Order: sequence, then structure tokens, then C-alpha cells
Amino acid sequence: MTKAPWVTYRPEIKVLDCTIRDGGLINGHLFEDKLVQTVYQTCVDAGIDYMEIGYKNDKKIFAPDKHGDWKYCDEDDIRRIVGDNESGLKLSAMADAEKSDYKRDILPKKDSVLDLIRVATYIHQVPTALDMVKDAKDKGYEVSINLMALSTVKDKELEEALASFAASPADIVVIVDSYGSLYSEQIRDYAKRYLKAVKGTGKEVGIHAHNNQQLAFGNTIEAIICGVNRLDATIHGIGRGAGNCPMELLMSFLRNPKFNLRAVLECIQKHFLPLQKHLEWGPCIPYLITAYFNQHPRSAIELLGGEERDKFVEFYDRWNEA
Amino acid sequence: MTKAPWVTYRPEIKVLDCTIRDGGLINGHLFEDKLVQTVYQTCVDAGIDYMEIGYKNDKKIFAPDKHGDWKYCDEDDIRRIVGDNESGLKLSAMADAEKSDYKRDILPKKDSVLDLIRVATYIHQVPTALDMVKDAKDKGYEVSINLMALSTVKDKELEEALASFAASPADIVVIVDSYGSLYSEQIRDYAKRYLKAVKGTGKEVGIHAHNNQQLAFGNTIEAIICGVNRLDATIHGIGRGAGNCPMELLMSFLRNPKFNLRAVLECIQKHFLPLQKHLEWGPCIPYLITAYFNQHPRSAIELLGGEERDKFVEFYDRWNEA
Repeated sequence: MTKAPWVTYRPEIKVLDCTIRDGGLINGHLFEDKLVQTVYQTCVDAGIDYMEIGYKNDKKIFAPDKHGDWKYCDEDDIRRIVGDNESGLKLSAMADAEKSDYKRDILPKKDSVLDLIRVATYIHQVPTALDMVKDAKDKGYEVSINLMALSTVKDKELEEALASFAASPADIVVIVDSYGSLYSEQIRDYAKRYLKAVKGTGKEVGIHAHNNQQLAFGNTIEAIICGVNRLDATIHGIGRGAGNCPMELLMSFLRNPKFNLRAVLECIQKHFLPLQKHLEWGPCIPYLITAYFNQHPRSAIELLGGEERDKFVEFYDRWNEA
Repeated sequence: MTKAPWVTYRPEIKVLDCTIRDGGLINGHLFEDKLVQTVYQTCVDAGIDYMEIGYKNDKKIFAPDKHGDWKYCDEDDIRRIVGDNESGLKLSAMADAEKSDYKRDILPKKDSVLDLIRVATYIHQVPTALDMVKDAKDKGYEVSINLMALSTVKDKELEEALASFAASPADIVVIVDSYGSLYSEQIRDYAKRYLKAVKGTGKEVGIHAHNNQQLAFGNTIEAIICGVNRLDATIHGIGRGAGNCPMELLMSFLRNPKFNLRAVLECIQKHFLPLQKHLEWGPCIPYLITAYFNQHPRSAIELLGGEERDKFVEFYDRWNEA
């Protein structure tokens, strides 16, 4: 990798905004068009490289009467927001292994305004994910493979998965700390393993961090230091549970003059402060507790949605006894 | 330093709780005795090594009608809380250079329940601070010297300051990121410089991080990795502005079985959630902005105290034009 001395920057670094995609996990992807358009324009104005607008998931699995358009990202719905996307911003959608009818729903690239397909997979779904990667690549997209819940994956399985990713046509392999449970030393270790696995293939490594322990930004910096060039973040850190690496922190850190912190601040002030009045995200103690026990945040989300939301000692005790 | 593999811990690591001292900066040190007692008991129960109960500052400079007892830490006031402190928890007070009548107000150790005096100094006050260090050491205390606003100190001056600290009778030298503006690479660089400066003297290096960029915990971990053994934290991250490294995160990270996360969680649930209803602290965008411009948080504190508290784009623009 290019060394990045303090006063300069590494031009290979690219930032992906997954505000609408990951943020959609807290409201059933029911964002109003105005907000999606605002995020799109903010990404353009802030010099962000990619915007992930939602999922390419299956309407048979996720009923359309319960989910907004960004669970499916039909071509017409995307174009309603971005037209033919004549900006320099690339567009991404995520497809979940076993939740996407990818052969049918992901169009050939020539018929789509999307540029990047990111395949999300748990370790046991890797064979399906690899078929999805090949399908998207054959259709003409840039492709990323994102192995989720990394903190639960055994070393031996990870080695095999990384070898299969390296041999696949994916362009990007993303380190995903789904539970927000990893510390910087672990991020460093994973970054080294991922980078070693893809060495010589021309593939890039990415990082998708969660903020359960207030480490999403710090861990993203750690990954950058190790040579990770693809960075996920969301505006004001929106995302399921504790949320993601906040874009405003990342923008203030990155030194490439193409990035513009002010555009993100303006979007937060005008649109995300009001949004926070009826949607909740961000680090708090129940998410620290699930991360501590290396668990999915769903039990903490349930706790926070109930009457007993402040009783986190009892919540801790239940996990501790489990 | 002792290497600390993942599954074990470094026994030299000691944690200092500065909840009442740093937290007192947001309420004029007007905590009720019940809360101070609770924090004391929590520190004992959680296996924390030191509790910093307040300042040893001068009543001529800080009027007693405007400040609580913990601005001065008179011996009788401390004993009202801790008795003769028959616990294993050591007690600390901070004295600010040029704000403390230290020769008069810091008693000989034999007459005090305090164990540690921490001298806080800006770079231009170092000669005074060194006299304070000597005074406290001669009186029989453990002594720490804490150079504040490190991000504004020039390299050459820092070298000279560190040499004077190394030659002083101080036991501990603390890296203080007053503005919460430092990134992990900078923490690593400072940690190496501090450790090199004190090498062979038997002194320990400490870290006091602020959370403006959600990096207080991550930077504290980084300092630990570099060999820093004295760690400051506060319960629920309370402290001026963006607050400090949250004790609950630190407790969940440290592997020494003497530490007890649950005791801290219980204290937060019972006492700090109610406290947060009338005191405000923690990371938010105005504190990111002051950190970004390497400024003291006071202008952000003012902003947040006023009607225009959400207008952080205008606040950013003012600093950007400055």
C-alpha cells in the first residue's frame, strides 16, 4: 500500500455511504423519497465514492406491505431518486445470501443504474454467496463479498472462506464486525489476514464497523492504517442498534481534498436531527453488553423497545447466566 | 513492558476513576454527598485502583459560594465521605498549576487520607508544576504530572518538558488529550515519546482521553498496547464537554479478574441515568468541530447552552473562517 504520512492522504481510499441501506434496518426501509434524495445529494456534495441505497432482497421473503422500496431496490424506484445518476457517485445495493432472488432481480448492468453489488453472507452460506458473486460479475457489476458476524467465525473456516473469496471474481472483500465486538488489535489481525489472502489478486479489502463499544470510528482508522482502502460509514452513524461508523467523523479524518465535511454536517443538522426525534440508534449500554457477550444486538433492540429499557443490569445478568 | 496476550492481562495496569473530579467541571463540583459516596463504593466494588475526588484548588481563586466542596477537597470534607478509607482504593486529588495554594492546602501525607496528588499544568506553567511535584513528594504522596492541551504543544517544548518530568520526583506522567483531538497514530507517537523519556526512571505513563471524536476508549486501548499502564476513566463517560473514556467500556475490556463491570453498570443504572436528566455530557457534533479545529471545547459548551444549540453548521463556519 501507499504510505500515508500525516499531512497527505492515500488516494486509493474510497468511502461507501450505507445510510439508507443500514439505516433502513431500523425503520423497515420506509424512508421518504425526500430523505433518500437528500442523502444522495449529500453524498455527491461530500465527494463520497459510493452510496448504498438498499437491498436487492426477495419480495417473497420480505413482504412489500411491511417493507419500504429500499428492501428490494427495483430499478424504477432507484431511478425515481437518482434519474440516470449523472454524478460521479457510484451506486450500490446489497443482496443477502438466501434472501435474494438474485438471478431474477439483479438486472444486467447495462439495464441498471447500479454500479456495485455487495453480497452479504454468513459463514454457512458461502457457497451460495460465491454463486451470487459470479452472477453479479457476469452481469457486469463491480462486486463485493461481505462475510458477516466475523466475531463468531472459527479461524479454520475463515481461512477457507478467504481462500474462496480470493479465487472468486469479487473485487472487494469486506471485514464486517456485525456485533460491534472487535477491538483494534483484532481488527489489525483480521486486516492482515484479509490483505494477505487477496494479495496479488488486485482485490481491495473493506471495513464495516458497528459502534456498540464506541469503537466503530477508531476501528475504521485502525483498518486504514493496516491498508484497508474501502470504508463504510453512515450519516450521523445511523444503523441498526448502536449504528455504524459516523460519516462526519470519517470525513473529518480523511485528508483527501475531494471530501467535504460541511456537506455532511448540513445534512445532519437539517434532516438527521429531526429524524432522531422518532428513530433511535447509537451506542448505549445494552449494545455494549451484547458486544461483550459476542451476540447479535437483537436482544438489546428488544430491551430498548420495552418498558424495562433502563434495566440493563438485569439484562447483563441474564446474558451472564446464559 | 509485560506482553499481554489476548486471554490474559497486564497486572501493572491501574485504573483511576475521575468521575467526581472531571464530572465536577460541569456542575461546579456541586455533587451531593450521596452521589460521591456511591461513586466511592462503586470504585471499591469494581476493583478500581484510584478515585480522584476533586481538586485542591484555591478558595481565593474559586469562590466557595460558586463551587462545591470538591473544588478544594478539604480534609474534613473528604473524610465525611470516606472516613479513614479502610478500603484498598487509593484516593487522589488534582491541583492546577497557578490555581492552587499547594504549600498551604496540601497537607503532609501523614495528616491526609489522600494517597496521590496529580499536578495539572499547561506548558507555560511547567516550572510552577515542577515545584508542586516536589512539594507533594516531600510531603509523602505519590505524585503525577499531567501536561494538558498536549495537541497544542510544540515538539521542542514537549521534549524539554518530558526531560524535566523524567528528572523530577513524579511517579507518573500522564498524556492528556484535553481537546479530544488526537487520533490513535498520534497517541502511539506520544506514548512512545513519553515512555522513552521516563525509561529507566521507574516512572509510569498514564493516559487521560476525551471523547470529542468518540475515540476516548479506542485511544486508551491504543495507549495500553503501547505500554501505558495508568488509565483514566469516568463512570458513563461523565466529564466536561464530550466527556472521558467511559469506565464501563474500560471495565469490559480489561481482563484482570479484580475488575468488576457489573458494579459500574449498577451505579449507572441507579445513579447516572437520573443524573443525565439534568446534566449533559458526551460526544456530539459541536465537540467534534472544536476537536477538528484543535480548540478547547468551551465554545461548543456555550453553543450547547444556548438557543442555537443545533446550529452546528454555522458554528463550523465560524471556526472555519477564524
